[in-house]
Amino acid sequence: MSQFNIAWLPGDGVGVEVMEAAKICLDALKFDAAYTHGDIGWEFWCKEGEAFPQRTVDLLKQSHAAMFGAITSKPVKDAEAELVPELRGKGLVYRSPIVRMRQMFDLYTCLRPCKAYPGNPLNYQDGIDMVVFRENTEDLYAGVEFSPVPDDVKAVLKAHSKPFGHFADLPGDAFAITCKVNTKKGCERIIRAAFEYAKRFGYPKVTVIHKANVVRATEGMFLETGKRIAKEYPGIAMDDANVDAITMWMLKNPKNYGVMVATNLFGDIISDLAAQMVGGLGFGCSGNIGEKLAVFEPSHGSAPKYAGQYKVNPIATILAAKMMLDWLGETEKGTRLEKAVAAVIAEGKVRTYDMGGSATTLDMGEAIARKL
Amino acid sequence: MSQFNIAWLPGDGVGVEVMEAAKICLDALKFDAAYTHGDIGWEFWCKEGEAFPQRTVDLLKQSHAAMFGAITSKPVKDAEAELVPELRGKGLVYRSPIVRMRQMFDLYTCLRPCKAYPGNPLNYQDGIDMVVFRENTEDLYAGVEFSPVPDDVKAVLKAHSKPFGHFADLPGDAFAITCKVNTKKGCERIIRAAFEYAKRFGYPKVTVIHKANVVRATEGMFLETGKRIAKEYPGIAMDDANVDAITMWMLKNPKNYGVMVATNLFGDIISDLAAQMVGGLGFGCSGNIGEKLAVFEPSHGSAPKYAGQYKVNPIATILAAKMMLDWLGETEKGTRLEKAVAAVIAEGKVRTYDMGGSATTLDMGEAIARKL
Ligand SMILES: CC(C)[C@H](C(=O)O)[C@@H](O)C(=O)O
Ligand SMILES: CC(C)[C@H](C(=O)O)[C@@H](O)C(=O)O
Repeated sequence: MSQFNIAWLPGDGVGVEVMEAAKICLDALKFDAAYTHGDIGWEFWCKEGEAFPQRTVDLLKQSHAAMFGAITSKPVKDAEAELVPELRGKGLVYRSPIVRMRQMFDLYTCLRPCKAYPGNPLNYQDGIDMVVFRENTEDLYAGVEFSPVPDDVKAVLKAHSKPFGHFADLPGDAFAITCKVNTKKGCERIIRAAFEYAKRFGYPKVTVIHKANVVRATEGMFLETGKRIAKEYPGIAMDDANVDAITMWMLKNPKNYGVMVATNLFGDIISDLAAQMVGGLGFGCSGNIGEKLAVFEPSHGSAPKYAGQYKVNPIATILAAKMMLDWLGETEKGTRLEKAVAAVIAEGKVRTYDMGGSATTLDMGEAIARKL
Repeated sequence: MSQFNIAWLPGDGVGVEVMEAAKICLDALKFDAAYTHGDIGWEFWCKEGEAFPQRTVDLLKQSHAAMFGAITSKPVKDAEAELVPELRGKGLVYRSPIVRMRQMFDLYTCLRPCKAYPGNPLNYQDGIDMVVFRENTEDLYAGVEFSPVPDDVKAVLKAHSKPFGHFADLPGDAFAITCKVNTKKGCERIIRAAFEYAKRFGYPKVTVIHKANVVRATEGMFLETGKRIAKEYPGIAMDDANVDAITMWMLKNPKNYGVMVATNLFGDIISDLAAQMVGGLGFGCSGNIGEKLAVFEPSHGSAPKYAGQYKVNPIATILAAKMMLDWLGETEKGTRLEKAVAAVIAEGKVRTYDMGGSATTLDMGEAIARKL
């Protein structure tokens, strides 16, 4: 029997292709795993009205970890039209499977390391090594939304919030509300995860990103929690920045940043920016980590326009596999895999189109595997 | 009598200094205005418990436009401690004057042009010309927040929102809520402003930035509104991007973007990123524009650490003055002012510290004035 049960969820479009490349590397490492394919993606939405079927949920429950490719996602309105005719008009609503997975399995840490590997022609600057910790379960992602806004919601918000007076007189369909909901526990555990990581890997500080000057209740709580938890880590400095300002500082002085932590949506934004600075879509990898399960993925989407071409860069997915190995305690293999990636990048012979080369997705996977 | 009444609000810190430089230029243009100083800033918070006193509100009501420098803002908690003793403990809450001004005077368009002037050593790339339209009155800036969350708010949210069930069982002080409130009217008018601008100045498309795939009620409404309004402008294309993804695209292919439009907080973030790409804090200018009043400002803050040194780059403020001239219909003067700025940048002889030079704030103002 294999040591690890890995759920293998290629998903849609180029997700399938980059996962193949990652598999080549995991096999070359002789990673002792049993891989079980899980259905997920647009196809299952269309056929079953469920992009993340219960059988896949069950598979995840029995897995040590999962690798996930990418998923096509479309606006709610367009999604309905693509259902098989029998399923239309039943009020089925498409919700992003990855967002649901994060919430369902309480994968509260979204870890996104963004490192400028030497020799990558796409680096914004040499020496960048940013690690974004993004809260992964709440915030504007909680799904607490009103459109139209019911009368009793209006009444209760008006009773408690003076600034809401301004909106309370509008008809319910003249506006919409999305509640940004953040819990103390949610803030604490992601910030603690960031500090623990800084401690373990020797980063001198943690940067708390927020918008406490305006979004006081929730982001203020996040910042205060950061200050409180920082006291538990006397060896690690804490600084903080507004989410708007940090986009400037990141470009201006990227080497000033290492571990960064933010609430869900701000983390989503900042981690994309950071990923772009170390090569973009082909390099942004992501771990969705809970206490019992973790799901690793490239941050990019299913790129319908490239699907079937085996063209996209699988490095993001291969680095996601490295993160999985680390999380499973297979750090020796994880380190070897990262070194192989770094070696191929440094050599500069095998490059996918985004890097200015013409290697295919699988060429890249194989080149990395050969270094193992 | 002068043609225009201009409220002059230097505010705090370097706000005072950059405003002096802007005044040098406006005077050199012989702009026919009566300037009236308005009290605003940290000092008035400390002394009066009001950073934006009623007398300044009244001044704005009698003005054609205002120039605003910068304001120091501190977290709520720290603000209380800096009040004169008589005012402490009265529950006074510091709220950003600029945010209040935007709401009070319904300055719903925040216009932030970000142009890479040739010769600016800080340009990320030549040829960038992005113009961010940011909704300026609602969204997460509405101030509708709960911390702790009252029981009846919990009950009503639970009754209407399945995902809220998850939070409803928590004690009210274990979490906080900030409501992102967007109105149809608010979405419409900012998107229309963006399209009108594109039409007037010949931009081929408008990019609608959103997060409709997750933040469905509000951002979905914003995107749908964008699609609807785009139909009124057959000569102008519309595209759209998720706010996370756009940070990548902006770095990757900045010349692909011209007019961009977003809800308040996303616009805040995107406009800082765009400003950084054309030189950063010293170049980001901002117009807060309503039907009757408009307030122009540099996007930067009061930079307490530089205050008193006459060191910071006033170009952002001078470009804000150019925007004011345009808005008042003084476009000939506005154009001349912009050309003078461009000429000084192109020449490269007078540069402030951020540009690698040693010119002072006023040197820069004077150099630009000399080109007029
Ligand atoms: C696809 C989308 C729902 C997702 C998110 O917003 O979290 C993506 O942007 C990500 O960063 O993983
Ligand atoms: C100072 C702050 C309240 C303000 C904002 O968030 O709008 C600033 O960042 C801006 O962009 O004008």
